[in-house]
Amino acid sequence: MIARLILSYRGAAYAGWQRQENALAVQQVVEEALGDLLGLPAPPRIHGASRTDAGVHARGQVAHLELPRPFPPAGLVHGTNARLPEDVRVLAAGEAPAGFHARKHAAAKEYRYRLSRAAVISPLDAPYVAPVEPRVDLERMAAAARHLPGRHDFSAFAAAGGSHRDPHRQIFAADWTEAGEELLFTIVGDGFLRGMVRALVGTLVEVGLARRTPEAFAALLTGAPRQAAGPTAPAHGLVLESVTYPPEWNSAG
Amino acid sequence: MIARLILSYRGAAYAGWQRQENALAVQQVVEEALGDLLGLPAPPRIHGASRTDAGVHARGQVAHLELPRPFPPAGLVHGTNARLPEDVRVLAAGEAPAGFHARKHAAAKEYRYRLSRAAVISPLDAPYVAPVEPRVDLERMAAAARHLPGRHDFSAFAAAGGSHRDPHRQIFAADWTEAGEELLFTIVGDGFLRGMVRALVGTLVEVGLARRTPEAFAALLTGAPRQAAGPTAPAHGLVLESVTYPPEWNSAG
Repeated sequence: MIARLILSYRGAAYAGWQRQENALAVQQVVEEALGDLLGLPAPPRIHGASRTDAGVHARGQVAHLELPRPFPPAGLVHGTNARLPEDVRVLAAGEAPAGFHARKHAAAKEYRYRLSRAAVISPLDAPYVAPVEPRVDLERMAAAARHLPGRHDFSAFAAAGGSHRDPHRQIFAADWTEAGEELLFTIVGDGFLRGMVRALVGTLVEVGLARRTPEAFAALLTGAPRQAAGPTAPAHGLVLESVTYPPEWNSAG
Repeated sequence: MIARLILSYRGAAYAGWQRQENALAVQQVVEEALGDLLGLPAPPRIHGASRTDAGVHARGQVAHLELPRPFPPAGLVHGTNARLPEDVRVLAAGEAPAGFHARKHAAAKEYRYRLSRAAVISPLDAPYVAPVEPRVDLERMAAAARHLPGRHDFSAFAAAGGSHRDPHRQIFAADWTEAGEELLFTIVGDGFLRGMVRALVGTLVEVGLARRTPEAFAALLTGAPRQAAGPTAPAHGLVLESVTYPPEWNSAG
């Protein structure tokens, strides 16, 4: 049986999603909790849809694992949560169709980035919101973001060390909205290069501060080098909101 | 010069607002930061508008203090914040009119309580949201809350150990709204007895679960004893959102 998990975590204490040497990753703590719950000799291998970076949060990461024997989904949720630190939770679990792969079959991922113009950010929000100069112009950022939907070469927004061969990604939607003193960037695409959303936000902020034009931003979407784009926005403002799948992968059997 | 501060804090690590023996209070850490900033031999005494309980958060607590000498408000904000732990922040500071008292002159306080029907609450929200049974009926809770505006005897909702002599308070507004899986209770009044908002929420949830009728809830507002009302909802769901003052206290000079 293949189980599909929906996971949410605060990223602050982790070196990102992906298990690695010498640093604690979210994948590792989930695998160890599952191994303990299932009474396995070694933690099972789980596969996440998105390799969120160090410090990045998730509301709807999706992961799958092969269970050695059937296990009731409600028991997976509550049994795993009882073994997880409080900053990581399984929100839901279910049986996935045979052959399901959380990363390979993902059709779309949605990320959200929160900026605040406040002079001082409330400690209630500060773990999830990055500061921005109050004079930033939302209309300019929105004008630049309107160039994002479509298929582009995002080399200018790829962090070094990413493992992708093809720098093209398809963006389905990209919008800025305002909520009080906050500016929220939401982007949906078929996939994202390493560091891409944060590099887009850092560059869009430069447009908002009139250091670039929306047209100059658009010109970066044709394979410009990384140094042509702006800085990488801080990790803690970013949340992986959800991952969606084609209908054939949404129900077991 | 009297300085007025707007403060925001996460309540989890504190024994509430009010300074006390043997436990760390928000008031104490703010007083110590100010004493250090101002170079005073002992921390100055600050007066908060609301004595938030242990674990309760604030987005807009107001406090005042008498400054021994004029100090630029921007310096108060940034100098104090540089000396505060990251879960407490001065959001703004300004000069208050002579005679201003943050607690005595407060005209209205707004509190918000967040409940979630989710089977598992995301770790991003969990520090600020209390769980509720999903079957809770928002319409029943809203019907009960419509009895709150007006002046009532809130003895049934006052925690033991409160220091108030008169159990009457004036409620200006009280509403439930829905946001995704969350149910938000907002209440504005001229003041609140100790534990009052949380006891109201705990009792309103009983109405929502059909353990009480909205009319039985209304009958508690005439001086019923504490044991006639429902349980006290957890502290971490509650936020002091703002404190407002009559116009004559809003600007210096």
